[in-house]
Amino acid sequence: MAMASVRIRQAEEGDCGNILKLIRELAEYEKLSDQVKISEEALRADGFGENPFYCCLVAELLPAPGEPQGPCVVVGYGLYYFIYSTWKGRNVYLEDIYVKPEYRGQGIGSKIIKKVAEVALERGCSQLRLTVLDWNKGAMDLYKALGARDLTEAEGWHSFRFEEEAMRELAGK
Amino acid sequence: MAMASVRIRQAEEGDCGNILKLIRELAEYEKLSDQVKISEEALRADGFGENPFYCCLVAELLPAPGEPQGPCVVVGYGLYYFIYSTWKGRNVYLEDIYVKPEYRGQGIGSKIIKKVAEVALERGCSQLRLTVLDWNKGAMDLYKALGARDLTEAEGWHSFRFEEEAMRELAGK
Repeated sequence: MAMASVRIRQAEEGDCGNILKLIRELAEYEKLSDQVKISEEALRADGFGENPFYCCLVAELLPAPGEPQGPCVVVGYGLYYFIYSTWKGRNVYLEDIYVKPEYRGQGIGSKIIKKVAEVALERGCSQLRLTVLDWNKGAMDLYKALGARDLTEAEGWHSFRFEEEAMRELAGK
Repeated sequence: MAMASVRIRQAEEGDCGNILKLIRELAEYEKLSDQVKISEEALRADGFGENPFYCCLVAELLPAPGEPQGPCVVVGYGLYYFIYSTWKGRNVYLEDIYVKPEYRGQGIGSKIIKKVAEVALERGCSQLRLTVLDWNKGAMDLYKALGARDLTEAEGWHSFRFEEEAMRELAGK
């Protein structure tokens, strides 16, 4: 069987169902799936309204010539948004990047990151940030090989988070 | 002398000069001031145009009754923006928070964080994230005391960053 080729494209609203499935797969892989509360409706409203909160790329398999030309299969995604550095200005943050296990090792993840870098440069961003779990050695090695620095290791940055209850406490609500 | 009271308010474009001074002070405190490339013009354009890239709070001292009523002195700031979690939806990220050393210990930092939490809840955010240097024990202790969790410690998250050169390499530009 000929190897299918992969296309990276901007997600459309109709992709949200597939993206949600992949979000859940990634959270399971990260052993943190109890934290996933998002719905397909929220993904649709927040990514495809007038002032979208995020942008998303999907990786889809194109059938090889001679194969049945059905709907394309989405095998990975990269969800990002624009942030701001008080040192460097406009920046992009890659919140999630995921490729289904059975399609790894073909450079699909690298293609997604490359596309994010392209979009970011077009929009005048000078940095691309992301966060990765320290036991996810494969991902860490890939990002380093592609030129990223581990700032937690190099400079000592720690990620902190207030959950909703702590925020309500703070706000007195 | 009566103790001056502090007001936390949304920054206006005219505050950008003061904010830039504080951004530089914070970067010096973090021993990373060689990384600051931002200009006052960029801060004005990026924060106060049609689709602002960030929001900013400033803390200013109000003169006590009976004191000369000059312009208020800006002694701290908190710069934040809206981000997106694929687990929880709309989120806020506090990029910088800083209070001038001579005004610490009066709860000004906590007031800034509380105001960010208020704004975030009003906008439907369910989490507030930030990043802190591991040797900045005072800041870490404050965030923990206010209810934040250290996710690098608890779950092993590391911050990665691609700089512009690495991005150009990736994008083939």
